[in-house]
Amino acid sequence: MEKSIFYHAGCSVCVSAEQDIVNLIGADQVEVVHIGEDRNRIAEAEAAGVNSVPALLTPNGHVLHINYGASMADVKG
Amino acid sequence: MEKSIFYHAGCSVCVSAEQDIVNLIGADQVEVVHIGEDRNRIAEAEAAGVNSVPALLTPNGHVLHINYGASMADVKG
Repeated sequence: MEKSIFYHAGCSVCVSAEQDIVNLIGADQVEVVHIGEDRNRIAEAEAAGVNSVPALLTPNGHVLHINYGASMADVKG
Repeated sequence: MEKSIFYHAGCSVCVSAEQDIVNLIGADQVEVVHIGEDRNRIAEAEAAGVNSVPALLTPNGHVLHINYGASMADVKG
């Protein structure tokens, strides 16, 4: 199975959700991407359908928006 | 590890998220509760901090609200 991708922006909501997702899915099954720092991956996240962070992109291309930390507009600043 | 609990109300957003979560976590690691039908578990979900469905209650007591299907007020009708 391909990995899921967890997009976040370093906010407290993001960090808490990241820990939960890593615990549930397993660290080896999820790539964690900080799009506040790794800004050249913002376009990729938006193209995948990520509207806010934290969000989990599943291997089958679904986006799970988990709780609510910040909008993509906030991330882009 | 204790199981997670996935609360939903049968909506299309819920069903899609349920399939994703079961695929990611494993069916044996998550109890699926339809609080639209199993209404005597609504109070339990609210006490755990569930504000909308679908939502995943992790074994450590965190609530992950995943996308947005319906508010608890909608579920209670």
